[in-house]
Amino acid sequence: MLSKSRLKYIQSLHHKKFRDENSAFLAEGTKMVEEALQFAPDALLEAYATPEWLSEHPFIFKQAAVTCQEVSEADMQRMSSLHTPPGVLMVLRMPEPAVHAFPGLTLLLDGVQDPGNLGTIIRTADWFGIRHIVCGTGTADVFNPKVVQATMGSIFRVQLIYRPLLNFLDAHAETPVVVAHLDGQSLPETSLPLPAFLVIGNESKGVSDVITDRASLKISIPGSGQTESLNAAVAAAILMYAWHN
Amino acid sequence: MLSKSRLKYIQSLHHKKFRDENSAFLAEGTKMVEEALQFAPDALLEAYATPEWLSEHPFIFKQAAVTCQEVSEADMQRMSSLHTPPGVLMVLRMPEPAVHAFPGLTLLLDGVQDPGNLGTIIRTADWFGIRHIVCGTGTADVFNPKVVQATMGSIFRVQLIYRPLLNFLDAHAETPVVVAHLDGQSLPETSLPLPAFLVIGNESKGVSDVITDRASLKISIPGSGQTESLNAAVAAAILMYAWHN
Repeated sequence: MLSKSRLKYIQSLHHKKFRDENSAFLAEGTKMVEEALQFAPDALLEAYATPEWLSEHPFIFKQAAVTCQEVSEADMQRMSSLHTPPGVLMVLRMPEPAVHAFPGLTLLLDGVQDPGNLGTIIRTADWFGIRHIVCGTGTADVFNPKVVQATMGSIFRVQLIYRPLLNFLDAHAETPVVVAHLDGQSLPETSLPLPAFLVIGNESKGVSDVITDRASLKISIPGSGQTESLNAAVAAAILMYAWHN
Repeated sequence: MLSKSRLKYIQSLHHKKFRDENSAFLAEGTKMVEEALQFAPDALLEAYATPEWLSEHPFIFKQAAVTCQEVSEADMQRMSSLHTPPGVLMVLRMPEPAVHAFPGLTLLLDGVQDPGNLGTIIRTADWFGIRHIVCGTGTADVFNPKVVQATMGSIFRVQLIYRPLLNFLDAHAETPVVVAHLDGQSLPETSLPLPAFLVIGNESKGVSDVITDRASLKISIPGSGQTESLNAAVAAAILMYAWHN
């Protein structure tokens, strides 16, 4: 039986303030459990599941360092951040961003606000083997349950670093900065540098002027239609594909 | 002052059944109004705006064939499909799908269920100059207000055709069918046919077997990460980019 204080603690992790205070976040669903146990087993702090989920997945937590505690459907509904709880919920420790070298392509997000876009960008980055994403001021919180779920497990493989982008660029001034820009060079005709920092802008305002001023290369995705812009996650995906191939 | 029957009619258009019965749908916001007046002026049936919106945009409807009726903030809240109504709402006639030739790249959606993904795919298709999207059984309704808004106006330029995909393929058997598939040829090393039908699958199940059996070409997007799949709208965008360039 789940204690009131434990329930309250888990519910508090629906909010950024308490996630940051506790350096902990939630992830739900069978796929997320499998990904966490494979790629971030040390991050697992607590696990809870309904009787139904446990009877369907009796072996998943067998090798884990943490015991999965059984909770009622009603308690799971109260703990879950999702409208339809998938029956299993984990509390995970936020990773400690280490000091890095950035040898390949690194994404810099200049205020990507939509949680769905952020989740999709992380998942796509994982697909293309990108290891680091630097999130500037105004970017959505990766530990927001919506983002966690939208990453489909990629959150356990791609490292997210929250830092003001200008500070980050100052500390890594040797790496070329590339900005997607309507007046840039045409992407398929451009030779792309590596290592590189690729900046993805805010959904409505694009990349800010102070960051654009730092760009050593501006590139555009050629289109033939009449729409003004591409969705931020879509533009990021096309750029990552071009770098990868 | 808005009549009760008019309010009820507009509210009914939040639901697919009544949209289909009336061949009408809703779109909201200044950008959608500008796009509709430029690209689909004949589709505009009714328009409503708050006093605040009208005072900020006194000229937009000046040349339109339809008068924009002033409604109170409270009525707009009741009419709107959005949590925060942007202050202007249109009732539009659904376009009549004409009989077509399909000379370029045409997208076929095999059960894309997420309204956000459908909206993003339409917007990306518009960017790359794609004129037609065929929506198979199980694909979200393009006239769902969430999809309409997510297209950012592209709904007025890209034609959506709802038809079972097997029927459609039978009627256009001469055009090559291309399916994205994990075991397909590597996209950057493949010469892409034109005209072509490019099939985008369901978010969790991918392209159905009966459609995959019709494919003359299977292609894969090479990655180096460990995530299982790309988001449907992201995969569609990378494929459209590759075709365009």
